[in-house]
Amino acid sequence: MPVSTFLVPSHLMLQLLTAAPAPAPQAAPSLPVAERLVGAALTEGHAWTRLAELTDGVGARLSGSEGAAAAVQWAQRAFKADGVKAWLEPVKVPRWVRGEERAELLGSERFRGRPLSVMALGGSGATPPEGVTGEVVEVRSLEELGALGERVKGRIVLFSHTMQKPEDYGRFAALRSRGPAAAAKAGAVAALVRSLATASLATLHTGATRFEEGDPRIPAASVTVEDAELLSRLVAAGGPVRVKLVLGCQELPDADSFNVVAEVKGREKPQEVVLLGAHLDSWDVGTGAHDDGAGVVMVMEAARLLAKQRPAPRRTVRVVLFMNEENGLRGARAYAEAHAAELPRHVAALELDSGGGRPVGVVLRAGAGAAEKVRPWLSPLRTVGAGALVEGEAGGADLSPLLPARVPFFGLRQDASRYFDVHHTHADTLDKVDPVALAQSTAAVTWLAYAMAEMPELLPRPEAPNPSAGH
Amino acid sequence: MPVSTFLVPSHLMLQLLTAAPAPAPQAAPSLPVAERLVGAALTEGHAWTRLAELTDGVGARLSGSEGAAAAVQWAQRAFKADGVKAWLEPVKVPRWVRGEERAELLGSERFRGRPLSVMALGGSGATPPEGVTGEVVEVRSLEELGALGERVKGRIVLFSHTMQKPEDYGRFAALRSRGPAAAAKAGAVAALVRSLATASLATLHTGATRFEEGDPRIPAASVTVEDAELLSRLVAAGGPVRVKLVLGCQELPDADSFNVVAEVKGREKPQEVVLLGAHLDSWDVGTGAHDDGAGVVMVMEAARLLAKQRPAPRRTVRVVLFMNEENGLRGARAYAEAHAAELPRHVAALELDSGGGRPVGVVLRAGAGAAEKVRPWLSPLRTVGAGALVEGEAGGADLSPLLPARVPFFGLRQDASRYFDVHHTHADTLDKVDPVALAQSTAAVTWLAYAMAEMPELLPRPEAPNPSAGH
Repeated sequence: MPVSTFLVPSHLMLQLLTAAPAPAPQAAPSLPVAERLVGAALTEGHAWTRLAELTDGVGARLSGSEGAAAAVQWAQRAFKADGVKAWLEPVKVPRWVRGEERAELLGSERFRGRPLSVMALGGSGATPPEGVTGEVVEVRSLEELGALGERVKGRIVLFSHTMQKPEDYGRFAALRSRGPAAAAKAGAVAALVRSLATASLATLHTGATRFEEGDPRIPAASVTVEDAELLSRLVAAGGPVRVKLVLGCQELPDADSFNVVAEVKGREKPQEVVLLGAHLDSWDVGTGAHDDGAGVVMVMEAARLLAKQRPAPRRTVRVVLFMNEENGLRGARAYAEAHAAELPRHVAALELDSGGGRPVGVVLRAGAGAAEKVRPWLSPLRTVGAGALVEGEAGGADLSPLLPARVPFFGLRQDASRYFDVHHTHADTLDKVDPVALAQSTAAVTWLAYAMAEMPELLPRPEAPNPSAGH
Repeated sequence: MPVSTFLVPSHLMLQLLTAAPAPAPQAAPSLPVAERLVGAALTEGHAWTRLAELTDGVGARLSGSEGAAAAVQWAQRAFKADGVKAWLEPVKVPRWVRGEERAELLGSERFRGRPLSVMALGGSGATPPEGVTGEVVEVRSLEELGALGERVKGRIVLFSHTMQKPEDYGRFAALRSRGPAAAAKAGAVAALVRSLATASLATLHTGATRFEEGDPRIPAASVTVEDAELLSRLVAAGGPVRVKLVLGCQELPDADSFNVVAEVKGREKPQEVVLLGAHLDSWDVGTGAHDDGAGVVMVMEAARLLAKQRPAPRRTVRVVLFMNEENGLRGARAYAEAHAAELPRHVAALELDSGGGRPVGVVLRAGAGAAEKVRPWLSPLRTVGAGALVEGEAGGADLSPLLPARVPFFGLRQDASRYFDVHHTHADTLDKVDPVALAQSTAAVTWLAYAMAEMPELLPRPEAPNPSAGH
């Protein structure tokens, strides 16, 4: 006899299905709830409306900026309007501000001088007001930099690479994050980093670069793919290639800011927390539509829809809009510290920080047997594209402080094929986000959050991370 | 008996073929010459080398600039090195120079203020040093602007459009070239024009805007697609949207410059001229690789290869590197005036100004029967993609002064699907030109030039243009 979802109340259906004999007793989802949650996410367009408010209305929101403060206020107001209880948790954040930035290729017998487009990397030092001038030396890896030894002294190091596709980001991002510090230690006067991009129309990509406490903090800027290739060609042709760089950025004293935390209390086990994270800060260029406005509005929308769900899910769903993912992870660390006692009761956590693309699958980072527990809950997501577990591990920068507490992670894989066209650029704006894809991913996240909060059994916790791996 | 190109000298083969009975006596090409010319263009890579010299070595070259002067010197030296006789013909050119340029969206209750990216259009007026401020009024056509009447007074007019593909350029380019002047006449204080683009990563596209003598010359700037859409959304949401614009551009006195003219003398009819044109000037952003560096090096390479051809083609092949195509057509007019007496003996003319894409076909603008004369000469171009006549008319801005003299035009259609991604932007750089495509188009142009100079009969001249059509 078929089980009709039209005739059997959902709580009974769950009993019927869990009572089924084969293959193993399995919790299964309530289809009416899935219909309601997925249907609302796909038809109401509320996440998109919120994304327009955040990007067009608030705009850029680098940690410590007025924009970041406005974003915190906006999020708190929006949660309230959505009927979701929210509060602020304090975080001290770095406050790095961009200043004048320009560069020029100095002329020679072989070529006329010309302006180069540059954008300081977050955390970069400044040049003197008159700038620094140096001969360009090009490297394609940190190893190559190391091998140059003394030859870097007094030079401007150009970090080149061959990024073509999103998957290359992981291979080359260290050139931006650690290259300038390594160049500084070797005596370079400045660093230029080819933009980490999957397409370029003379597009500059910023991003964080790290200097250790006490190390020389040299000026470090991204250059466009076009200018990087020009410098590369000129260096390859032989003869000195000299560049002048002016950067007026500053590191101001730390500022007061906040994580915005919101919660939908669980009906049975309110002390067990399913965490949905995204980051509220963005870079200071563009309006952080994909990075990470999309993640923010998706987890906010999940909370709004779950807050309307009767009965409420079994466990508590908590949304954390982290501050300072981009240049410090201070929000992530502050959350983990403030909630240390609670972390053993964090039963699942998801981070969205890959843009607003359509869903392509679900990933996990949990103990043995987790996949079997999750799989039956994915069937309502088949037609929005997230009906299956796929290769890869769940996680994210803002979740990394939760690793020692062995919190199980779940994640939504999204289409990110064009994400690195706009990542950290002036072009990361609302027009780049497809409303259909955003609604589909919102639907997927809302249902996944419900599933994690409603499944009868907990996900097994993963092994503790290898302490030598570091984050 | 088959005619073997290995056994029959080319001049005899021509006789054999023209003597063939059916369908009509037809001139046919010399295959050994085609093999040599096409083979050289496809294997030697000389056009690409020249393009690197012009773009990386000389760089931007707006009329009247140091770059333009350097380009003239470069071209003259390059022709000499290539064994092609060349000379300079004087042209007085406008000299418009870019200055400071910035804009900001002023904040309101609905949105925080923020910088907007702007790039002055060539010919734009300047703002006072403190800028101009006005409420944005959006229009989508010149008709819509006209209908607004008094409501434009004191406002900043935003010219919006829906350009998506290269073919849209013709429909919308008048918003840039004529919109600001029309807005000025209606009392606007400034004009912003959505960049004419087929893709955008916050990319600004400049281009000429025209003001009539004596008309108010208001500040006029392009905005990115992203910012145009932002302004559009904010205007549509209601309530005033105010922008402040600062442009420091200047119109300096006319400068002395030159067309660079080069020639390969014809062996039989040296007084009959086949003209190959491209423009040496570019905008002051990017390095004019597609626009029109590619055209320049292709016609230069055609001259170089034809100069080595023995025997020389029947007629003279003349290359004209026009100055000031972008913002005045002064070079084109100067050429037509200086060579007025010769124009009746201009038997064919081609202009390349669509970038360095691969060839896709050949077009004509000539009298009845021209296609039948040209078609047999296209067979050597079949495998480089230009073996057929295709829809469309040959011509171009720099050829327009030759229209009254009824000069037959021929042209190479090239793949321009990505041309308007980079047209008039910082991204029009060498890396965007595919060396394979450039070599294929160079081969096609070289052979077409030979064909026009060698065909036994002249192309029939076209009708005189309709004088009311204008250019």
